[in-house]
Amino acid sequence: MLLRDLGEAGLIQRIRQQFRDANVTLGIGDDTAILEIPPGFSVLFCSDLVAENTHFIRGMHPADSVGYKAVAVNVSDVGAMGGIPMHFVISLAAPQDLNLDWIDGFYRGVARACREFQVSLVGGDSSSAASIFVDVAMVGRVKTGRAVLRSGAIPGDGIFVTGALGNSMRGLRLLQSGDQESAAVLRHLYPQPRHEFAAAIAEKVHAMIDISDGLSTDLAHILEESGVSARIYRDRIPAADGANEDEVLHGGEEYELLIAAPDSLSDPMLTRIGEIIPSQGKNEIRLVTGSSESILTPKGWQHF
Amino acid sequence: MLLRDLGEAGLIQRIRQQFRDANVTLGIGDDTAILEIPPGFSVLFCSDLVAENTHFIRGMHPADSVGYKAVAVNVSDVGAMGGIPMHFVISLAAPQDLNLDWIDGFYRGVARACREFQVSLVGGDSSSAASIFVDVAMVGRVKTGRAVLRSGAIPGDGIFVTGALGNSMRGLRLLQSGDQESAAVLRHLYPQPRHEFAAAIAEKVHAMIDISDGLSTDLAHILEESGVSARIYRDRIPAADGANEDEVLHGGEEYELLIAAPDSLSDPMLTRIGEIIPSQGKNEIRLVTGSSESILTPKGWQHF
Repeated sequence: MLLRDLGEAGLIQRIRQQFRDANVTLGIGDDTAILEIPPGFSVLFCSDLVAENTHFIRGMHPADSVGYKAVAVNVSDVGAMGGIPMHFVISLAAPQDLNLDWIDGFYRGVARACREFQVSLVGGDSSSAASIFVDVAMVGRVKTGRAVLRSGAIPGDGIFVTGALGNSMRGLRLLQSGDQESAAVLRHLYPQPRHEFAAAIAEKVHAMIDISDGLSTDLAHILEESGVSARIYRDRIPAADGANEDEVLHGGEEYELLIAAPDSLSDPMLTRIGEIIPSQGKNEIRLVTGSSESILTPKGWQHF
Repeated sequence: MLLRDLGEAGLIQRIRQQFRDANVTLGIGDDTAILEIPPGFSVLFCSDLVAENTHFIRGMHPADSVGYKAVAVNVSDVGAMGGIPMHFVISLAAPQDLNLDWIDGFYRGVARACREFQVSLVGGDSSSAASIFVDVAMVGRVKTGRAVLRSGAIPGDGIFVTGALGNSMRGLRLLQSGDQESAAVLRHLYPQPRHEFAAAIAEKVHAMIDISDGLSTDLAHILEESGVSARIYRDRIPAADGANEDEVLHGGEEYELLIAAPDSLSDPMLTRIGEIIPSQGKNEIRLVTGSSESILTPKGWQHF
């Protein structure tokens, strides 16, 4: 059965039956959703888009991965502010001759993300288009005044990361060579945002970002916004098994956290990879490898 | 200059400089935006997507119209709940070889919408893709418990519309024939949502929707959600100058309001076109033309 045969009204009806949330005042089916924000909290608001042939290949990435990941990356963004993800809307454009199996798989992935991350789908839009395009916009909450920005890093802070780096880009490389099951591939297809950990440590850190564009690029974001530089140590950066230099330093879609915090911050989840230093005009990353130090140029993914 | 030459970081920088809002705790440039909702208000949340060749043709629709309209339709959705539109995020996918003139025009239209509707751009995402895709997600506010749903219509209510119908679809027809300046064309390119009027009368109405899919389809939405039927009178439906039968009854993208309310509701902006009647099993639209009555089948725009 094709999307054309179901029609837009049929699609909305199908989604509406699948996604209900008793915690939402009004979910799918009116002009907008209605949500409640508890007193003392601010609203976090973000969006992430997924375009066919840019972010995924239809025959290579399973449909449920596309749905799962579109939600997970927004959960990660809210988490990187120290916030709690809550509700999201999905806009989906797809060809009329798309098989409904793809649509069903996509929403199965969305439903899995809803369960795992305790978030809910409350609305959206749909349209025909020549290729698949997904945009998820998410609302979360954070105690007013307690959000962790990119701009709070100060000289003397330690630089910390969660987990090991290089998994997702290595996973993509393996997926392209036909591997569909190894841990790195699953990590690429079903990333695990660190939002719960982020919320737990938020009050102890100065700056935080999720690694979506790669360590070098996302560290550069913190440095630019905070007006500082960084020194990091190559042999302290936790590398995923089998990941090469490029994948560790520049690989995107990791969704690990990159944190600047006082050195008193200590947790088994965290590895200290370097420190924030004063900026000498430029906001540079100094990479120490053995006994030599060089400037690391950000080389993460840039669209356009 | 092409989008590829500016790059993603350059694009974000350009947008960030253009869009600032002192009323937002944190706007463009971090993992999420941070917004405040005053006590006693609920959050309204919606999204609307715009796909090239489905919603607009690059050579025919000016870029600033695409940007303006993408914001306006969300303003209209928030308005149809009786709410106040506040902040939005834009996800934009575009070809790398797109001329920057298009991007500049697009954001000029977005900026015009921000001024006219008192809303602000606070974030989003961007990506390359084979064709242009825009998704706007918007957050608004409404006094808790005061939102106007589609489900509140009851037998005996009058059915009212703002303005005249058929302008937008007629405008598209004229635009396709080369007209770029007539009132109907401008109405199609730069729709005027009725959010301020909607908020002003919200407490007096039972059900409200904005006419985005056409009178017949959007009235059917109210009937389905409310479990009622409707009788409307062909000669009372205000028609735009030059609009044909199809354009008046089924033309989408009007962004006029369709309202079910007690007959005591009276305003120079409103025309009473019929009444809500009990449902006899089906939720039907009975169309009275002269002395005969027939069933009007919804025939608005359906994607897929």
